[in-house]
Amino acid sequence: MRQVLVAGIGSTSFRRHDTVPIETLAARAADAAIRDSGLDRSQVGALYFGNFVSGPLTGQEVLAGMVADELGLPQIPCTKVEGACASGGIAFRHAMLAVATGQCDVAIAAGAEKMAHAGTAAVTSALNCAMDNLSDGKSGLTFPGFFGLVWNAHAALYGTNREQVSAVVRKNKANGLLNPLAQMGAALDDATIAGSAQICDPLQLFDCCPISDGAAAAVLVAADRIGDLTRPGIAIAASAQTRGTPRVSGMSELTSFRATVDAARIAYEQAGLSPADIDLCELHDCFSIAEVIDSEDLGLVPRGKGAVWAAEGRTLVGGQIPINPGGGLLAKGHPVGATGLGQVYEVVKQLRGEHPNQVADAAIGMTHNLGGAGVACTVNILRRLDA
Amino acid sequence: MRQVLVAGIGSTSFRRHDTVPIETLAARAADAAIRDSGLDRSQVGALYFGNFVSGPLTGQEVLAGMVADELGLPQIPCTKVEGACASGGIAFRHAMLAVATGQCDVAIAAGAEKMAHAGTAAVTSALNCAMDNLSDGKSGLTFPGFFGLVWNAHAALYGTNREQVSAVVRKNKANGLLNPLAQMGAALDDATIAGSAQICDPLQLFDCCPISDGAAAAVLVAADRIGDLTRPGIAIAASAQTRGTPRVSGMSELTSFRATVDAARIAYEQAGLSPADIDLCELHDCFSIAEVIDSEDLGLVPRGKGAVWAAEGRTLVGGQIPINPGGGLLAKGHPVGATGLGQVYEVVKQLRGEHPNQVADAAIGMTHNLGGAGVACTVNILRRLDA
Repeated sequence: MRQVLVAGIGSTSFRRHDTVPIETLAARAADAAIRDSGLDRSQVGALYFGNFVSGPLTGQEVLAGMVADELGLPQIPCTKVEGACASGGIAFRHAMLAVATGQCDVAIAAGAEKMAHAGTAAVTSALNCAMDNLSDGKSGLTFPGFFGLVWNAHAALYGTNREQVSAVVRKNKANGLLNPLAQMGAALDDATIAGSAQICDPLQLFDCCPISDGAAAAVLVAADRIGDLTRPGIAIAASAQTRGTPRVSGMSELTSFRATVDAARIAYEQAGLSPADIDLCELHDCFSIAEVIDSEDLGLVPRGKGAVWAAEGRTLVGGQIPINPGGGLLAKGHPVGATGLGQVYEVVKQLRGEHPNQVADAAIGMTHNLGGAGVACTVNILRRLDA
Repeated sequence: MRQVLVAGIGSTSFRRHDTVPIETLAARAADAAIRDSGLDRSQVGALYFGNFVSGPLTGQEVLAGMVADELGLPQIPCTKVEGACASGGIAFRHAMLAVATGQCDVAIAAGAEKMAHAGTAAVTSALNCAMDNLSDGKSGLTFPGFFGLVWNAHAALYGTNREQVSAVVRKNKANGLLNPLAQMGAALDDATIAGSAQICDPLQLFDCCPISDGAAAAVLVAADRIGDLTRPGIAIAASAQTRGTPRVSGMSELTSFRATVDAARIAYEQAGLSPADIDLCELHDCFSIAEVIDSEDLGLVPRGKGAVWAAEGRTLVGGQIPINPGGGLLAKGHPVGATGLGQVYEVVKQLRGEHPNQVADAAIGMTHNLGGAGVACTVNILRRLDA
């Protein structure tokens, strides 16, 4: 396996993009990533595209080929991959594998989603495609309902409370204010969070990520092609993909996602690193309580302490382990197929020292992208070449 | 790249499967493939799943993980891939790459679709997800309409007529009668075909593949693991994936699919073979005229002669180049995500000498799977190990 670098990144803002077709959103992000890399598009040998619900919500599939066409890429293999909310991370891993295994020297991973035009009811229904609809779906469960159950279980086991979880919300919303790509950054106080609308007890409005449109992309290149690059390449030290159970009844405990635990273990092994080596992490906070669980599953925070550490300020920029300095899904937004690549975008900005909410001396960063009720997960570790 | 073998195959029948969930259909086919291979499911290191419109038609995504869960596979990477009607072929190629590049020693490619429950209008609408909906879609084009245009162009260029194209229909429907998995085999005469309902001039009812449910799967293994196999392995001599234009206005000519021409060229190069070496081909006859075009694009029949050769009997079993001895999409059916793997199933049966419509001494077979208006294509060449 050859070493693979992230040579270029691109992203649209995450927000409503009512007038731009999904393939054009994706092509804009990918085009920005190509220009950022300094490589010529004729060098691209494969494209992987992450998307989740374009079929149900916009009636458009075959997006991998359409995006390649709009970009003017060669007649290369173009593949859409889907693993619910982990679709973008899966696209990234497959582009990495295409380069690492010598299929090609340059590959593009892109992801996009358009959801806002469809309205909340249609989006909720489409998101339920990520459930096992013959078990969890028939029970009437939705994803806010599922993560409400997760919160209750974490509270029962570890005493996690509203004030502690609000610290996650405050942090990510404040981080989002600094990120020009973010949809819903905000300066919130605990009273505002605790007073916001009840969504699915105990989840309240600000505990839930918004419905977003957007696209993000990365250009990957074999390390031995580094001479062509305009920017310092960022090494992919690890890229892991796992599966977990597709349904609640398959979880041995509600307070941990097996797919995350497995992916993190594999990623640390691949990179030869431990959680203490990670300088920052962009993780999958689709709901505030998800950040609590994820930070524990990734080994960044002791088991049961996810919310406590947030409340103690240890996950702030400047803290022990900065989590979601880009604002996370809660503030940056969650255009599903783009999210995993949006996380890569944020981490690469950090490792280049160019992030608007910079973690000092960031050399090693992690991304974590989780699908459904934990049915699919990707974890990447990115590393500055001089680190 | 390691040599990869098809070690096991499995398939459901292609027909209506009203009471069986799509994940169960897929798991049945994959389970049959695992049992056919003699390998243990704990050895499987990756699963790729081809599906096109489960989101719009059944509200169920994350099928790769769900099928793995139903099969009791390990916590391995499970990835859904989509390229419209080429989704199954794309799954096959990615499972092949996972083994060839040493990601794992054993991988499963599976594909499935459930369509029949949704009714013709909903299926037609869902299939249009394979179009560029801002150009071809807005023009009111459907896929029958598109292939009607293709027929008219072929007729104008080469004089292709109803009687010649009817020979394709007669052959595939008759082949389907011999295939126990086929949905709509039939003994048809020219008058019945020419008298059938007008669908989209000049396409008539029997020129169009039926709406199908079904699943198919293959277990792939590294050649150096051949000692574990219960059946003679079939070598994957080539596996190519390409993209073409997503829209009619992007085609330089209506009578050829660039993605097919490119994939065939790559596949012949990979295998070190030429069209004359191919003993049989299962190709993408979503409409009768598609077989005419595909057989020319693959180099199996001289340009412009696709329908003439069919009328002369040269594509029958026993003819110069047997095409779709399994009945093709026209007779076997077209459960979209399964189709590319169903073709692999048929060819492996032929190369094992166990096909109900056996091509004598079949040693080298080809599969061809085409998506949308040519936006994605896969071509595989399979070969008996002793050939």
